[in-house]
Amino acid sequence: MVDTATRTNATPGTTADTTPDAGIEPADSTTPEQIDSAAPRIDVEKLGRQLLGTWAEARLASRALSSRPEMQKVEGLSLKDQRARTFGQLKLLVANGQVHRAFPKSVGGQEDNGGNIAGFEELVAADPSLQIKSGVQWGLFGSAVMQLGTEHHHKKYLPGIMSLEVPGAFAMTETGHGSDVASVATTATYDPETQEFVIDTPFRAAWKDYLGNAAEDGRAAVVFAQLITRGMRHGVHAFYVPIRDADGAFLPGIGGEDDGLKGGLNGIDNGRLHFTGVRIPRTDLLNKYGDVAEDGTYTSPIDSPGRRFFTMLGTLVQGRVSLDGSAVAASKIGLKIAVTYGSERRQFTAGSDTDEEVILDYQRHQRRLFPLLATTYAASFAHEVFLQKFDDVFSGRTDTDADRQDLETIAAALKPLSTWHALDTLQECREACGGAGFLVENRLTSLRADLDVYVTFEGDNNVLLQLVAKRLLTDFSRKFAKADAGALARYVVTQAAGRAYHGTGLRSVAQTVKDFGSTARSVNWLQEPSTQRELLTDRVATMISEIAGRLRSADRLSKKAAADLFNSQQNELIEAARAHAELLQWEAFTDALEKAPDSGTRQVLTWLRDLFGFGLIEKHLAWYVIHGRLSPQRAQAVGAYIDRLITRIRPHAVDLVDAFGYGPELVRAKIATGAEAERQEEARAYYADLRASGEAPVEEKSLKTKKR
Amino acid sequence: MVDTATRTNATPGTTADTTPDAGIEPADSTTPEQIDSAAPRIDVEKLGRQLLGTWAEARLASRALSSRPEMQKVEGLSLKDQRARTFGQLKLLVANGQVHRAFPKSVGGQEDNGGNIAGFEELVAADPSLQIKSGVQWGLFGSAVMQLGTEHHHKKYLPGIMSLEVPGAFAMTETGHGSDVASVATTATYDPETQEFVIDTPFRAAWKDYLGNAAEDGRAAVVFAQLITRGMRHGVHAFYVPIRDADGAFLPGIGGEDDGLKGGLNGIDNGRLHFTGVRIPRTDLLNKYGDVAEDGTYTSPIDSPGRRFFTMLGTLVQGRVSLDGSAVAASKIGLKIAVTYGSERRQFTAGSDTDEEVILDYQRHQRRLFPLLATTYAASFAHEVFLQKFDDVFSGRTDTDADRQDLETIAAALKPLSTWHALDTLQECREACGGAGFLVENRLTSLRADLDVYVTFEGDNNVLLQLVAKRLLTDFSRKFAKADAGALARYVVTQAAGRAYHGTGLRSVAQTVKDFGSTARSVNWLQEPSTQRELLTDRVATMISEIAGRLRSADRLSKKAAADLFNSQQNELIEAARAHAELLQWEAFTDALEKAPDSGTRQVLTWLRDLFGFGLIEKHLAWYVIHGRLSPQRAQAVGAYIDRLITRIRPHAVDLVDAFGYGPELVRAKIATGAEAERQEEARAYYADLRASGEAPVEEKSLKTKKR
Repeated sequence: MVDTATRTNATPGTTADTTPDAGIEPADSTTPEQIDSAAPRIDVEKLGRQLLGTWAEARLASRALSSRPEMQKVEGLSLKDQRARTFGQLKLLVANGQVHRAFPKSVGGQEDNGGNIAGFEELVAADPSLQIKSGVQWGLFGSAVMQLGTEHHHKKYLPGIMSLEVPGAFAMTETGHGSDVASVATTATYDPETQEFVIDTPFRAAWKDYLGNAAEDGRAAVVFAQLITRGMRHGVHAFYVPIRDADGAFLPGIGGEDDGLKGGLNGIDNGRLHFTGVRIPRTDLLNKYGDVAEDGTYTSPIDSPGRRFFTMLGTLVQGRVSLDGSAVAASKIGLKIAVTYGSERRQFTAGSDTDEEVILDYQRHQRRLFPLLATTYAASFAHEVFLQKFDDVFSGRTDTDADRQDLETIAAALKPLSTWHALDTLQECREACGGAGFLVENRLTSLRADLDVYVTFEGDNNVLLQLVAKRLLTDFSRKFAKADAGALARYVVTQAAGRAYHGTGLRSVAQTVKDFGSTARSVNWLQEPSTQRELLTDRVATMISEIAGRLRSADRLSKKAAADLFNSQQNELIEAARAHAELLQWEAFTDALEKAPDSGTRQVLTWLRDLFGFGLIEKHLAWYVIHGRLSPQRAQAVGAYIDRLITRIRPHAVDLVDAFGYGPELVRAKIATGAEAERQEEARAYYADLRASGEAPVEEKSLKTKKR
Repeated sequence: MVDTATRTNATPGTTADTTPDAGIEPADSTTPEQIDSAAPRIDVEKLGRQLLGTWAEARLASRALSSRPEMQKVEGLSLKDQRARTFGQLKLLVANGQVHRAFPKSVGGQEDNGGNIAGFEELVAADPSLQIKSGVQWGLFGSAVMQLGTEHHHKKYLPGIMSLEVPGAFAMTETGHGSDVASVATTATYDPETQEFVIDTPFRAAWKDYLGNAAEDGRAAVVFAQLITRGMRHGVHAFYVPIRDADGAFLPGIGGEDDGLKGGLNGIDNGRLHFTGVRIPRTDLLNKYGDVAEDGTYTSPIDSPGRRFFTMLGTLVQGRVSLDGSAVAASKIGLKIAVTYGSERRQFTAGSDTDEEVILDYQRHQRRLFPLLATTYAASFAHEVFLQKFDDVFSGRTDTDADRQDLETIAAALKPLSTWHALDTLQECREACGGAGFLVENRLTSLRADLDVYVTFEGDNNVLLQLVAKRLLTDFSRKFAKADAGALARYVVTQAAGRAYHGTGLRSVAQTVKDFGSTARSVNWLQEPSTQRELLTDRVATMISEIAGRLRSADRLSKKAAADLFNSQQNELIEAARAHAELLQWEAFTDALEKAPDSGTRQVLTWLRDLFGFGLIEKHLAWYVIHGRLSPQRAQAVGAYIDRLITRIRPHAVDLVDAFGYGPELVRAKIATGAEAERQEEARAYYADLRASGEAPVEEKSLKTKKR
């Protein structure tokens, strides 16, 4: 898998290591070095296995299926044809036994939560519409019946859902309420006379909206509505509601609209639904967390209406898991395309009279792509930890309230970062491939358009990060308001690297990181994992502690004034949550180094982890200097360290994207097939012949003798 | 144009001014203040006139035309239909007399360069494909004939080009060479026997590629090829080459391919062309800058082949001008949509038990959109200066070599920033509108997809910024290598704000900006324009000076080693160029304040300029602290200043986007029509009724008495 031509041309700035695990030296020289034959090498295949993670088999099976042309996106179809194709692909998934993994054994499933998600998220390589429409059918609609319903619903509805006989919509979001779903306005009023619920849409903003399967295919929906019985509102509950007859016509009392063309994901028929006096049997309330007796008495195993609602929502965390995973997968495909092309494409002669440079040898090109590569590795390892945590909870192995809360917090932290990262990565890859990147045949624009809304659905990224911040802040206020800052720092580390990931103890942290920049101190200080961890952790702890301090007076204020005070800290809060999520990624990357298959691979991955860590520190450099954590002198060295790391990583860039394991049948981009290298070779041969023949030399410097 | 409902709800954190032109106070309080009735007000109409600039009439005429449904993009068309529609729109432009402005009076034009560009760039509001296909036909193909050809070509070819009788391609880029167009490989070999040029494509990488009008519509092309005569190569020249017959079939020796679907701009038929022994008359060399006599003798008014080529390229700078302008226009439309929606959309109750907050009142939402608004104003004012400079040069009023070079540098600096900014802005606006933003009916995704390639064509943004940096560096090396740093600083200011913009003298600059952060110093220091200018200028000067120092040894190195040394500075160089371009934008914004229609408008624009300036300083804060230009204490205050500015700007946000002058007929986004406010009103009335009737109260806190 190693591109030898690239290797030998990977000249500018690539560095030599005298020992395979040599650390980073200070940038004491600006002249480039040659690659040493003793330099570390990546074992591409074994690294690939590590990246596949715990559910490697499910991933490989899904990739094999995704490699089949009939499962893949065809570009340029009409809306109608694209929707039909995606729906047909869902049937192929059923036919290939790919949709049963998560469902109960009682209805023919395997109760394999981790494997289920791993398999689904790999479908993004075939077509994001396929992944998301599958997610609507089995991850949202089917999951709601499974998680919020009880045995009765499982037996009655899951078989038709699993077989796709009953395509369904997950009718939660309304035109007026997306992020604040507790405020949806659709009502389900119990009528004891007929023992039915009556579903109503009270006004236009309460139309269900943006629902996959709603515009065309859906035969039923899980409708989230305010449950009203005996004149009392009990909050949002889920109801199983048939919406169309066998001919596809709306049932009485139900209407809707097509959301029409979207910026991407046009294989999915998103639409709107509204309800007028729609009657369903009492027993079609999905009653795991709340039930209504024949006489209209409401009961629930969860006392608090708020906690009840969040418990219901919590069962749906798997959507965020799979978006996180598929965003990572899309980033990998983008980088595979751009790095492959960059290692073949040549432009401008720089160090030679005849040979043009491979564009990946330009420092700017490396600076554009390699930090994204490092972040993709970090996000990939973090996703694996996240998926394991999800499987632990949903399998019931470690399913306490605390576990669920930790899982929610990890989901709310990682999904925003990975989905934004995917958009940034696909865009930078698009631009790095120039005009070729803009052609749909090279996939980058299409993938990016399809992934755009990943940052919005299943929880808007900014709203999710605010949830993370509130969690950090609430816990801080409860536990550490009167404690010292060191306690908070330990707490954050516990959250980040301890309990949430490892379910165990504390890690020591030097809360008072101070750098006086003495040149006598080790130049290796910054590359010590403990230093990076301290810097990243300390930032989260300090930010939360500072915000908490500024919010301390909120208790004494009016509701309005307290809200305003909180609002004045909102941006900083979200940045603190981002810092927390970055730390989660860094910890996962660092832990993964221990599992590297060999020392050469570990060395290269360590450089990549350092690039990720230094990249985070560089991004927040002003904070570190202002807060006295880095001396100005050492802060200035961060950029030089990054430049050094980038030249070290250059010879391994192609291996690092090859290890993602996406072959041409999944990458499907013409520019990543070697066609560019062939063209360059042909051109080079032409010019060599031309020079050899002495034909048509280039005009001398000036036509006339120089006068001006 | 003021949304009163929004105004009165613009509560959290909006600030009071005791005087209309009060400066920014330090963030000495975290409690919000109320809007004062004495607060400044924007004169929306007059500000709108200021934004329209010198060529207001051409812009308004183009907007009026763009308002007609037949000129506007229809979404979801097939590739074939979209292309046909765009081609039809070009005919409408001709029929409406919109394409003649720039052409010579001798062929019925008006020789109005500025007005021509202003008119064309406004077409982006109707359909970016229309703008760019027009640009291909008249701005590239037609312009090449006009600028590179002579009277003979003008008379013979321009009428057919202007009337669209002869659609044509601008055949410069090849599959193998986009950025490095001096290396295109197509050859034009003079045959004195027949007095013809023979056009040939020597290998696959030399196919012309990505050419608008090449896949379907083009009847001719201006082909850039290496001119060979008498066995000597004279570099790249342009040739007028018919490519298709009246039936649309390729002429003998010509072949091609369709580039197919693209990430956007699918109204344009981009394609590839190749040539095998295609013969054209000697006189179809566009011979303004180089000619071949009947006997094959080559002559040129420009001695140096390098300078000759860059002169030819320089005539085509107008493409960069119009991309800069249309990127600004698209950013304005995006912000008009997102700010309007944000001022109506409500989500979550925060400071009230019943009323939800307008999302534009959330600090994060403001932090996301207002800096983009400030940058859009900066880019808009900078574009006006750029367009004036372009008109000055192309009208011949001030057309020296130095003017042309300055124009090129401004183009290479501003086009990257504005096109990247447009993508960032449209994406943030898309996300800020949530799921609604993803619907094509709300335009943001479609505009972004169409504008994506603006960062690549007419000069890849990174390559252009490197050109800017090389210009700064070359001039520095020539003029100041032995001078002191202060001389460089003065030089940079001259480049940025002096010669390039004003054609006049030096501005004093405190090169040794040092901030010791004494709290006794005026808190107003940072908001002084002179401080902002010094900080921004000093950064450019210092970066260039530092890079020049590191490159000083290059003369003593081998070509390869020198190239490697240069490459090691490439990233920093491009960042220096970006800093230079940011300074150009800041200067243009600052100059525009003097032309504000009244003191209230000027006050709000000054806050916006400060937000832009502080935003730049915040972005590069680490640099300022590390280099001792800002004390850590004052650096920390920058963020607080920005938060303060944002609350000041909030009440004026709707006015600021209304002043862009894009009405509903041009914005064409359902969510920006007031529909959202209507829906919210209906919902609010429903809940008010519900509360009044006492119907169905919300479930008490807990079902049972609390036990756990």
